[in-house]
Amino acid sequence: MPRKIINTAPLSGMMELLPAEQLVFEEVKATIERNYQAYGFIPLDTPLLERSEILLAKAGGETEKQIYRMKKGEHDLSLRFDLTVPLARYVAEHSGELTFPFKRYQIAKVYRGERAQKGRFREFYQADVDIIGRGELSAGYDAEIVGLIAKIFEELEWGDFTIRINNRRLLNGVFQALEIMDQNEVLGVIDKIEKIGWRAVAKELGNLRLSQKEIDLIIKLAQLRGTWEDVSESWRSLPIPPNAQFEAGLKELEELSQSLLATGVRADRFCFDGSIVRGLDYYTGVVFETQFDEHPEWGSVCGGGRYDNLAATFSQQKMPGVGMSIGLTRLFDQVLNTKGILKIGARQTPSEVLILPLVQDMKPIFELAGELRAGGIPTEIYLETANLKKKMKYANSLGVPAVIMVGEDELEAKKYSLKMMASGEQKLLTVGQIIKKMGRK
Amino acid sequence: MPRKIINTAPLSGMMELLPAEQLVFEEVKATIERNYQAYGFIPLDTPLLERSEILLAKAGGETEKQIYRMKKGEHDLSLRFDLTVPLARYVAEHSGELTFPFKRYQIAKVYRGERAQKGRFREFYQADVDIIGRGELSAGYDAEIVGLIAKIFEELEWGDFTIRINNRRLLNGVFQALEIMDQNEVLGVIDKIEKIGWRAVAKELGNLRLSQKEIDLIIKLAQLRGTWEDVSESWRSLPIPPNAQFEAGLKELEELSQSLLATGVRADRFCFDGSIVRGLDYYTGVVFETQFDEHPEWGSVCGGGRYDNLAATFSQQKMPGVGMSIGLTRLFDQVLNTKGILKIGARQTPSEVLILPLVQDMKPIFELAGELRAGGIPTEIYLETANLKKKMKYANSLGVPAVIMVGEDELEAKKYSLKMMASGEQKLLTVGQIIKKMGRK
Repeated sequence: MPRKIINTAPLSGMMELLPAEQLVFEEVKATIERNYQAYGFIPLDTPLLERSEILLAKAGGETEKQIYRMKKGEHDLSLRFDLTVPLARYVAEHSGELTFPFKRYQIAKVYRGERAQKGRFREFYQADVDIIGRGELSAGYDAEIVGLIAKIFEELEWGDFTIRINNRRLLNGVFQALEIMDQNEVLGVIDKIEKIGWRAVAKELGNLRLSQKEIDLIIKLAQLRGTWEDVSESWRSLPIPPNAQFEAGLKELEELSQSLLATGVRADRFCFDGSIVRGLDYYTGVVFETQFDEHPEWGSVCGGGRYDNLAATFSQQKMPGVGMSIGLTRLFDQVLNTKGILKIGARQTPSEVLILPLVQDMKPIFELAGELRAGGIPTEIYLETANLKKKMKYANSLGVPAVIMVGEDELEAKKYSLKMMASGEQKLLTVGQIIKKMGRK
Repeated sequence: MPRKIINTAPLSGMMELLPAEQLVFEEVKATIERNYQAYGFIPLDTPLLERSEILLAKAGGETEKQIYRMKKGEHDLSLRFDLTVPLARYVAEHSGELTFPFKRYQIAKVYRGERAQKGRFREFYQADVDIIGRGELSAGYDAEIVGLIAKIFEELEWGDFTIRINNRRLLNGVFQALEIMDQNEVLGVIDKIEKIGWRAVAKELGNLRLSQKEIDLIIKLAQLRGTWEDVSESWRSLPIPPNAQFEAGLKELEELSQSLLATGVRADRFCFDGSIVRGLDYYTGVVFETQFDEHPEWGSVCGGGRYDNLAATFSQQKMPGVGMSIGLTRLFDQVLNTKGILKIGARQTPSEVLILPLVQDMKPIFELAGELRAGGIPTEIYLETANLKKKMKYANSLGVPAVIMVGEDELEAKKYSLKMMASGEQKLLTVGQIIKKMGRK
């Protein structure tokens, strides 16, 4: 039969890892998840497919272009492009059955048909947490979210990082006090600072019919960056008319700073930064982005903030919230492609131990594997007929930490020769001793 | 602004759980995953989207009707309908970089646009393991897979179950010996036994131009069911000409039976059953299905078997394998809807402890939460301004195991009042004592 040649590569823009990399990815994901749970977030699992009208209810033109959309029977369906819209739908649908504040996490894939280029993904994991209130939500939850970000990146040990925090109420207060219209446009311009620099920002603000005095003020506000002590006085002394929004924004940031220190976040792990606005227009209070100090080229690896009303499109109830999202796939890809951070070892198996049988009858071998597994040791048996050389080649290639060679003598004596693959150390041990030696420390 | 009314229900056929159910689902999934890892399977994560030509390369008309397919730019894409085809593609694509036998698991969602009806899902989890050899694969791995099934359902404690095992080589041997053509048609008829009964099967076999003698023989073979001792003699004494396939099939089953007992599988957890053929035509050796004894209406909750060549469509290399799949979403739904099996409690949080602050200043509260989390206790703080009654209502509604009420006195004494929600028991404890009491046992 002539074979049709089929392209077996994964679709471009979709990450597909080899076993050794996958194991490390799973560890990273587990670290994030463990911390989400430590803070009391519950897992949520919404369908990947949604009605297109749900996903596009509030989305702009860019989203509409990127979305994966299809007809199936009479249904117009799309793949979610983030985890926030499905959360809004979920909360609107089930609000009567949920306990508020509702704290959920979701680590799951989302889809955006972006132009293919290095470092851009069309299928990628987002790792989100959000806390949703009904009617109101205490500012203290902002500190929980920022503290959680710090906790996770401390634990991942990928180098020094800085959580850059701002409050949209500062700029909103300025807009209010100075009666500036085009607010979203101004925010859009400030959001481009990292890309185009201050000079270009000033010029573009000029194009928005702002006076030089207004531009100077906004740039001064946005340019400040440092600890609370560094920035608060300068922010306070900006020449703007007294404004309640602006004052409230400052007060929230001050409390956030104190709470973060109280919760054990190192003082050099966060700063206040007037240039952080986050493009999305649904943020209304505290906003933040996270960068690795030695890898500005990674961009913001985790962002979030506070919004007044999550589910405005789907529900009449007011549901304020605060949340954050780690762009897991992109971040993992960046870390993977940066030398010296992640150790992708030879290990291609969760097994701690590989049994290499040197006997014909496999029954006592199955028994031994059963005992080790019952003792909590992930165990694998090499069951192919092969000479010892081929068996050891398999062990090496698998990168398993230890092998047990089992012959007639070992079965008789009930003592087994455990060889640690890294050191070459070899010892005759009982099953109980092997379990003790190879068990989780 | 007038609001458009949007239907916020999840799409029909897509499971969406409430928090308390979701926590139990996660436990079930974790139990399966833990066991997959204990047997040395590595996790794999392939994209949900594949080229349609990959998914439809070998698929029949039914699959083509059910598949979720879309155009995106110049690409013709589809959502995977199982995890086997993506595995075949992965193995063909990466065979040079994998270690064989390659043991992988994948617990992930797949998509089938089936007619909506109760208990049928269009988005559902499959929990698959497969062991893929290159060129050959020892029969011992069949025992590992069947043993793993037994291990998982023992641990889930959902009642007695039976793994019904057969070998396609028995029927294939009969086909060979009696020179029966229409083999797939015959298998298709036998596969309907549970639905239509023996009489109808005999009649349909007659329609396939089989002689009465042939029909009697096939039905006798298929009707046998019991322990190896029960069935082997009867199978051996069937009046067919000597046939190597048939003999080899019997030998494999005999060894499988012995290996399963050696690996600690209870004798009443598996049986041999000539009626198990599994419709899919890629199985070539041992096949099995699993049923709960008291819930035949659940159907087969886990099936699998051995196949000669996984990736025939994608690769010239011969890759035999053995695997199994748990239909997780459907099974969970069935268990959830059967009284008295799963306990969906009031618990809606992974938190072990909820802190209820009775003070204004949250900083020592954040500190306390940080210490508990550092001690491994998932901890949540209720940060809303509310009276104690409302706070306790939140605790009750959340179903959290314990609360800590923290006032000025407690902060001063560094002893906190821990209240166990179920028993009402209340004690004054240090942070260390709380960690000890609430930590994983």
